[in-house]
Amino acid sequence: MVTETTPASSRPVTSSEAPSGSKIVLGQNQYGKAEVRVVRVSRDTERHSIEDLNVSSQLHGDFLSAHTEGNNEHVVATDTQKNTIYAFARERVGSPEEFLLRLADHFTGEFDWVSGGRWEAEQYGWQRIEDHDHSFVRDNREVRTAVVVADGDRRTVVSGVQDLTVLKTTQSGFEGYPKDRYTTLAETNDRIMSTDVKARWRFADGAEVDYNAVYDDVTSILLAKFGEKYSSALQQTMFDMGKAVLEAHPEIAEIKLSLPNNHHFVIDLSFCGLDNPNVVFHADDRPYGFIEATVRREDSDDASAVWELIPGFC
Amino acid sequence: MVTETTPASSRPVTSSEAPSGSKIVLGQNQYGKAEVRVVRVSRDTERHSIEDLNVSSQLHGDFLSAHTEGNNEHVVATDTQKNTIYAFARERVGSPEEFLLRLADHFTGEFDWVSGGRWEAEQYGWQRIEDHDHSFVRDNREVRTAVVVADGDRRTVVSGVQDLTVLKTTQSGFEGYPKDRYTTLAETNDRIMSTDVKARWRFADGAEVDYNAVYDDVTSILLAKFGEKYSSALQQTMFDMGKAVLEAHPEIAEIKLSLPNNHHFVIDLSFCGLDNPNVVFHADDRPYGFIEATVRREDSDDASAVWELIPGFC
Amino acid sequence: MVTETTPASSRPVTSSEAPSGSKIVLGQNQYGKAEVRVVRVSRDTERHSIEDLNVSSQLHGDFLSAHTEGNNEHVVATDTQKNTIYAFARERVGSPEEFLLRLADHFTGEFDWVSGGRWEAEQYGWQRIEDHDHSFVRDNREVRTAVVVADGDRRTVVSGVQDLTVLKTTQSGFEGYPKDRYTTLAETNDRIMSTDVKARWRFADGAEVDYNAVYDDVTSILLAKFGEKYSSALQQTMFDMGKAVLEAHPEIAEIKLSLPNNHHFVIDLSFCGLDNPNVVFHADDRPYGFIEATVRREDSDDASAVWELIPGFC
Amino acid sequence: MVTETTPASSRPVTSSEAPSGSKIVLGQNQYGKAEVRVVRVSRDTERHSIEDLNVSSQLHGDFLSAHTEGNNEHVVATDTQKNTIYAFARERVGSPEEFLLRLADHFTGEFDWVSGGRWEAEQYGWQRIEDHDHSFVRDNREVRTAVVVADGDRRTVVSGVQDLTVLKTTQSGFEGYPKDRYTTLAETNDRIMSTDVKARWRFADGAEVDYNAVYDDVTSILLAKFGEKYSSALQQTMFDMGKAVLEAHPEIAEIKLSLPNNHHFVIDLSFCGLDNPNVVFHADDRPYGFIEATVRREDSDDASAVWELIPGFC
Repeated sequence: MVTETTPASSRPVTSSEAPSGSKIVLGQNQYGKAEVRVVRVSRDTERHSIEDLNVSSQLHGDFLSAHTEGNNEHVVATDTQKNTIYAFARERVGSPEEFLLRLADHFTGEFDWVSGGRWEAEQYGWQRIEDHDHSFVRDNREVRTAVVVADGDRRTVVSGVQDLTVLKTTQSGFEGYPKDRYTTLAETNDRIMSTDVKARWRFADGAEVDYNAVYDDVTSILLAKFGEKYSSALQQTMFDMGKAVLEAHPEIAEIKLSLPNNHHFVIDLSFCGLDNPNVVFHADDRPYGFIEATVRREDSDDASAVWELIPGFC
Repeated sequence: MVTETTPASSRPVTSSEAPSGSKIVLGQNQYGKAEVRVVRVSRDTERHSIEDLNVSSQLHGDFLSAHTEGNNEHVVATDTQKNTIYAFARERVGSPEEFLLRLADHFTGEFDWVSGGRWEAEQYGWQRIEDHDHSFVRDNREVRTAVVVADGDRRTVVSGVQDLTVLKTTQSGFEGYPKDRYTTLAETNDRIMSTDVKARWRFADGAEVDYNAVYDDVTSILLAKFGEKYSSALQQTMFDMGKAVLEAHPEIAEIKLSLPNNHHFVIDLSFCGLDNPNVVFHADDRPYGFIEATVRREDSDDASAVWELIPGFC
Repeated sequence: MVTETTPASSRPVTSSEAPSGSKIVLGQNQYGKAEVRVVRVSRDTERHSIEDLNVSSQLHGDFLSAHTEGNNEHVVATDTQKNTIYAFARERVGSPEEFLLRLADHFTGEFDWVSGGRWEAEQYGWQRIEDHDHSFVRDNREVRTAVVVADGDRRTVVSGVQDLTVLKTTQSGFEGYPKDRYTTLAETNDRIMSTDVKARWRFADGAEVDYNAVYDDVTSILLAKFGEKYSSALQQTMFDMGKAVLEAHPEIAEIKLSLPNNHHFVIDLSFCGLDNPNVVFHADDRPYGFIEATVRREDSDDASAVWELIPGFC
Repeated sequence: MVTETTPASSRPVTSSEAPSGSKIVLGQNQYGKAEVRVVRVSRDTERHSIEDLNVSSQLHGDFLSAHTEGNNEHVVATDTQKNTIYAFARERVGSPEEFLLRLADHFTGEFDWVSGGRWEAEQYGWQRIEDHDHSFVRDNREVRTAVVVADGDRRTVVSGVQDLTVLKTTQSGFEGYPKDRYTTLAETNDRIMSTDVKARWRFADGAEVDYNAVYDDVTSILLAKFGEKYSSALQQTMFDMGKAVLEAHPEIAEIKLSLPNNHHFVIDLSFCGLDNPNVVFHADDRPYGFIEATVRREDSDDASAVWELIPGFC
């Protein structure tokens, strides 16, 4: 029923005649339960640990008559999807990616008409308070993300990080750009550069992966490369960050980065007779530069249908 | 330099040898200035009017050496893009769509290496205070959105609305869905149905459009259809809403809707001896159902490369 | 047990010797359930209506041993407070103020050791979709607020409005202010003035009030006075707004206003040869001016203990 | 002109006759610039450091004619206050408290009619990336806060922490509370307890303080005491946290804590035949318990006029 080149979620179906004579059909669609806030406590010993997730489940498949006729016989209730998430967490989580893969196998295996779907999670970090056995403080340095897309038997895993804010106080500039009648920006070879790192990396199909270990290492590489060398523009630093990740991780097919340029403007203090050699800055809110790119292996398989299901550039 | 089937932003280029032997290349990319908060006052007569926009500009084209070599000679500064937005607003806005189209023509016309881009706007409504000439109160009922994607000479216009919260107190149910071991939801033929309407409609290529008039009419249709008839599920109501828009507007090729199901749970008051015939509800935050679909003309042209540049399902 | 000059919530009690020799005691305290999102549907006829509230309940009284000994025999569970809110909504809401007064009477009457408390609500507006009987669209123009403070038999009612954003495109200036070495601002007699109105008005003790009618009228007065005449500074306009409310409503003892100055900066377009006679503005986020004042009747009773329980200046 | 018992900001002044015959006067008022986002880089050596602050300045004093007559001769422009903040940061910050004290002395010393004011700051933490000299990652574990209130010559310093989220997986219960007809909560001696710590501690007048060292130590004590022993209710744990701070820091006169009870509900998995011995929880959003208290020295001086100027309970 699903063609090979079209995602399961976009089967066109005849519905009615439009005024212009063309038929109006149901296109791509998906539905489910979003933002199930599940916390799992591992308490096999007195030294507990926590997994804290925000999980969303959305199904693809044959849901045509639900849309056109109000026939719900294929509509696995979003409430059932929520219950399934809680029940699956009873056994284990392990990593958000493994947890989502188990959900994908369940829903596509259990219901004939479910041909695929997307499952998404955010994971929040917690650190022990002074090495205490069961007391924790939330570590908000970043949010870990994962998306699993199932299309028939194919499973695509995309891991990510967001809200990881970095800043370098020097070794950044912006020069040599084109000038037109609307250009007023002055060139500089010493400025603050700061961004909120949002990245998503897609694993090659079939890769065997220790998702937790890869997450830790990719995040470390992104941080290290951000600070390492002089930046001619955020584009250059972004590309270096992505390339370093691919060089270290052959199991990753591509990485997308979406980086706001959190502008820090030097305040001109001459109004009161003071100099300001890059000491006092205004951290501005809006507008901000917004720099996005994909770094990928030239021979990586096509995954554009997957990226369409990821909110934003990444 | 840009192939016909690949968006300008995704030209692959040789960069370096990866450990796995495959080359690492720059893929799809875009950059610009986001969230320029521009307010234009029309003051030709004593009766002023306001256009209040949040505009983002991102360019596609040949920015390879900026990423791989730190060569900025093609990098039209994001600050210049911001200045251009303000300067273009001096002449007129008119509608967010027309304003973004003018920006698209400017940037692709002015710089050889800019082959396209995406321009986006939110517009906020203001109403006169008691028909006053120059005093206004912000109308937060909804946010109007617009995206223009340029790829060579092609211009795709996608208009939208978001944060439009609706609710019906009856004439909604959910029955006849499949049950499995994880199902606990009870069937009902009388419940509250509420959602925050987010919709985006894409105009057929080359359509002549009065964007402001279409926006008002589409929004009215969405509201009217939401309440009109009994809803067997949000899917059915969503499809009816989309179909009605396409039936009324032949210039629209497709519409995407992304609708959270804002759950309102009836409180069981039997603990204190009270009945509750759908009078008192708890408006829950998370998790929520999340229902998304495209309604389109069967013969509409392919625009998947455009939708990839739209954040979220729509 | 409660002195006449000290709020019930701040009874000091001996606890332990501090290093400095002074005793450490429990001071002012309160607890309860916050943000109960209760929606009430009136469905006596086919023409339904909605009351949509966010209610918080906090109790004052003798909770000393709960703090110092973990003795919960006085701790009315926050879950019980939540249940009570839902149960009371079964009968009626009417207005947020009346609803909170009923809660106050209940909790202080039911439990000997509860000497008072604070109850707070936000109310969200809904409008019919095309005069439909049971379909509504949320009106986000503003949020209505209410706080009731009980201290023994005294009931203080404070109503309010927030997030009501207004803007005038002219008839506003700022001149004649003192200059020192840190002053760079240029004087102007024509600028945009915009603010998000947040106001709270306290009713005189014992006033008989139709809270819904007063709310509508006060909000109308605030809007009308904002636009009415030339503003020499936001301070002047704010005072005029408050004074007009008190002049029209003898039952109101005082009104507090907290107004951010939402700066709109004229963009200097001379870089590209354009003039800008107050046509194009940048709507800035931060920092913003912040102007707050109380307008009150000279002979109004003291309510400082009440205002201490209101978050922020108002 | 300012009485000893009334804050400088609340001088009543005759304004006009109200309908009820009472005069309408200006009461408590303050104004200034809010949320100046100033970042200071210390770059005396190659090893840079950052101070990242969000500073607000509000003045108290004789601003009557600005409100009643539009006379701005006393209105130190909020823009000037912003410039002063940037200029003062050129010399040093040191700690938010010291920085605010310098601002307080400046404004009350420079302008005769400024009798006091409130200055507030948030400070955001940054950690070095791998001990790098000039690259940092933002640490969002918590936000540090400070408020300085000046009233004539008196300076009151209130330090604080917020958004510090903690959780213990066991050693918490809630039993022995009163039951009425609205009570449905089951007693438990093993539950998750979690809260977002918000605390503010006021230093005794005239105390000599190393604010940075005290901040670090108070935060450590709050974390340690949260986890240390069995909690019979959040009230008990809160009091223990506050008492431990006062016992360790004689220079602190009182501490206020405002703690949401971030409910984690055990999911009943019996619908699918699974047990759930406190393993899988739903982390709920709203409503939440809200527990607030002051812990103070019995002989501490009165500071209610100061706390009125602090948003919220603390």
